[in-house]
Amino acid sequence: MRERAVVDLAEKLGQIDEHWSPRIVAQVSDVQVKLARIQGTFEWHSHENEDELFLVLNGRMKLEFRDGDVWLEQGQLYVVPRGVEHRPVTPDEAQILLIEPVGTRNTGDRVTGRTVEAEWL
Amino acid sequence: MRERAVVDLAEKLGQIDEHWSPRIVAQVSDVQVKLARIQGTFEWHSHENEDELFLVLNGRMKLEFRDGDVWLEQGQLYVVPRGVEHRPVTPDEAQILLIEPVGTRNTGDRVTGRTVEAEWL
Repeated sequence: MRERAVVDLAEKLGQIDEHWSPRIVAQVSDVQVKLARIQGTFEWHSHENEDELFLVLNGRMKLEFRDGDVWLEQGQLYVVPRGVEHRPVTPDEAQILLIEPVGTRNTGDRVTGRTVEAEWL
Repeated sequence: MRERAVVDLAEKLGQIDEHWSPRIVAQVSDVQVKLARIQGTFEWHSHENEDELFLVLNGRMKLEFRDGDVWLEQGQLYVVPRGVEHRPVTPDEAQILLIEPVGTRNTGDRVTGRTVEAEWL
């Protein structure tokens, strides 16, 4: 039984077939761990009440802020504090792990054409 | 300024010089991300109120439970639910990432000779 609960990150990432659509793979207390494949330029947004951790598993990505950018390479993480506007960008595909409170929306406090409800994978 | 907040997992792991002593590298809401180097056999314990996520970054480890074991390979994670007795074991050194609520003690609900207070790295 327990074996079924082991989450293999590479295997799960292989099951994701669209960009910018984080999928939930684990929950610890009130936060969830999500996986996403991303490529291109997302939209500016912020999360009023949620910190959001980005960890690059494969590739690299840029987090744009209104006052400057942060590049994250494979094996690097960054926590975007609640309330801080940011925009994820990556010219080439990157695979990332997110840690954020339950209910965090990918487009932040607004619902837009790019909003997706995260589902368990 | 922001560059300082980028956390490089390999670099941080290189700064840890003892086994079974998790160090905090990030916080998201009420949970913390910790890194640890482990080798050998830890002690049986449980956390009454805290879920605990183990993700293997390098090497492999076993989580022993009273009713069976789970092996985790590199890139695999497992969430030990609150209240469940477990014992981490690894014959060879492994490097792991933990996600757990603020204040989670490495030896669970008991203070023992192997208890360490997690500090920021």
